[in-house]
Amino acid sequence: VGELKLAFLGFGTVAQGCARHIVANEPRLEQEYGFRYKVVAISDPVKGSLLNLNEGIDLRRALQLLSERKTLEDMNGKTGLSSIETIAASQADVLIEATWTNLENGEPGLSHIIAALEAGMDVATSNKGPIALAFKKLRDLANSKGRQLRFESTVMSGTPLLNMREFCLAGAKISAVKGILNGTTNYILTEMARGKSYSEALRRAQELGYAEADPSGDVEAYDPAAKITILANALMDADLDFKQVKREGINRIEMKDVEKAIEDGKVLKLIASARRNEKSQVEASVKPILLPQTDMLAHVGGVMNALQISMDTQPDVTIVGPGAGGDSAGYGLLSDILTIHRLRLNEELVE
Amino acid sequence: VGELKLAFLGFGTVAQGCARHIVANEPRLEQEYGFRYKVVAISDPVKGSLLNLNEGIDLRRALQLLSERKTLEDMNGKTGLSSIETIAASQADVLIEATWTNLENGEPGLSHIIAALEAGMDVATSNKGPIALAFKKLRDLANSKGRQLRFESTVMSGTPLLNMREFCLAGAKISAVKGILNGTTNYILTEMARGKSYSEALRRAQELGYAEADPSGDVEAYDPAAKITILANALMDADLDFKQVKREGINRIEMKDVEKAIEDGKVLKLIASARRNEKSQVEASVKPILLPQTDMLAHVGGVMNALQISMDTQPDVTIVGPGAGGDSAGYGLLSDILTIHRLRLNEELVE
Repeated sequence: VGELKLAFLGFGTVAQGCARHIVANEPRLEQEYGFRYKVVAISDPVKGSLLNLNEGIDLRRALQLLSERKTLEDMNGKTGLSSIETIAASQADVLIEATWTNLENGEPGLSHIIAALEAGMDVATSNKGPIALAFKKLRDLANSKGRQLRFESTVMSGTPLLNMREFCLAGAKISAVKGILNGTTNYILTEMARGKSYSEALRRAQELGYAEADPSGDVEAYDPAAKITILANALMDADLDFKQVKREGINRIEMKDVEKAIEDGKVLKLIASARRNEKSQVEASVKPILLPQTDMLAHVGGVMNALQISMDTQPDVTIVGPGAGGDSAGYGLLSDILTIHRLRLNEELVE
Repeated sequence: VGELKLAFLGFGTVAQGCARHIVANEPRLEQEYGFRYKVVAISDPVKGSLLNLNEGIDLRRALQLLSERKTLEDMNGKTGLSSIETIAASQADVLIEATWTNLENGEPGLSHIIAALEAGMDVATSNKGPIALAFKKLRDLANSKGRQLRFESTVMSGTPLLNMREFCLAGAKISAVKGILNGTTNYILTEMARGKSYSEALRRAQELGYAEADPSGDVEAYDPAAKITILANALMDADLDFKQVKREGINRIEMKDVEKAIEDGKVLKLIASARRNEKSQVEASVKPILLPQTDMLAHVGGVMNALQISMDTQPDVTIVGPGAGGDSAGYGLLSDILTIHRLRLNEELVE
């Protein structure tokens, strides 16, 4: 079994996190999983575009150059290709799509994933946009091409969730999921419960890099709405449109709401949930909810995320873990790549 | 791809839980996973021994008969074979080993698993004894025969854990695990925190069927010691002997200990843990520990179990779920069977 040819589109925090895990664990990944790889292309609108089919791109050197504020184009290879040109020219086995999330129309990630699947590549993506907006279309395309589409890191970053459903909760029928899917708002609510005002907590979140300068994607709950859409469609076989999610953020929460919750012995959390209604349709919402202390989710603080999964075969299972960060989301990509590799190994034996 | 031939050894609560899940989901398992099966044998020291290679054994009818306090031997097929004779005669693809746990020498499960692997069968087991006492030997035998040995339900029953490590945390190096692995003692400690005495709480646990008449396996922590041995060896690649686990139960806990914990704002829990020491050896222990309220494990109450996993690639992941019960442990067996089936599908394509 030969080397897995990898192409990175988007080489920001998450893709670099993945690259760091790969280079840090190279001998172990080869020994334990038979994983050998060659990076044939990296394309990023800021960090440069590089293609090198023969020698491959040295990931260590690429990470080093970027840490020195140089660009990828300081390395050997063909430069200047657009992202779509890079996909076609790369002849990669796996496209790692880690460009920015766009919840309007999913671009440019959506076009990247379609082009890669059309070209017969497997895809691992951390990009919520295409999966939240076009999961069924992309899944059907992947199936029709006999290729894998994996997106573990789109929800709760590297915490096992989507692959877990496939490999560890097979056969179980999931009736509901409920959780804390946005670290920024959970951090703000946690700080408010400790006495900070909304605006103080938001400012602190921005200083720590948890919240963007424009925090609306988090505090108006677009981000967790995208994630619950992904979970409803991928875990519960729903056909939910992102815009159908009832969405209420935390931007109207006031100190008195948090104080009232504490007085009542409760905890205010931004809860994303999806459940099957009486007509067997899946309904989803994101909204602030008062949780009793007996609810495990009440004790998930700071930037941590959690999801409680209800199923027909056994009592609820709850998974708690990091919801963001280059290390964790980068690990989610690596987990997808290793799963793609494992299933390809069998495939290659067949051919 | 043909039917997967299943043989059940031990047909108590757990195996019947698995059988109920299979019959309840038959059409869906075939449609979604291509899973078709034939039960060729069931052997249980109390419920009878039955072999039927041609027609197979109707699981629905078997469950029905047992619910009417009849035995399996009231059905068509060859009766009276011993468990070892059943394995040889069954020519099964998968042995489902669900006999009782024996932490002295692992028997009879150990001999059953060895016989099945030697005969070229895959094995799914809920039996802690053989895995806690002889994991490396059994794993090496399975590898030498090219067969699968799965044991998801031995720890935290059907909550994803062991298969999760293999499929969803691949590539991550696990440095420590820490958790609540025994539901009975967690129930007793939870009740004591609500004001019951140790003996009252134990009696209630016995009434509810959580604790045995002789509760020493739980309250003296043999059960969680076996489980942490399994986790250390299977998740952390240790070579730990069950007898090396430092073990302290809850049988010496008094009301004043629990009251003192509450006064100090802490929670007393029986914590099983394994970590790599400076010499890179894995050390494991089970003992009562005072947890702060900020520890997620402090909020795992009643018969629930939880495990916190520390790894090199991302912050801790914690999984919380059922630790016992026929439904959940039975689902753990089904999850193993479906994984075995998925990987066999590829194998059959190769042949």
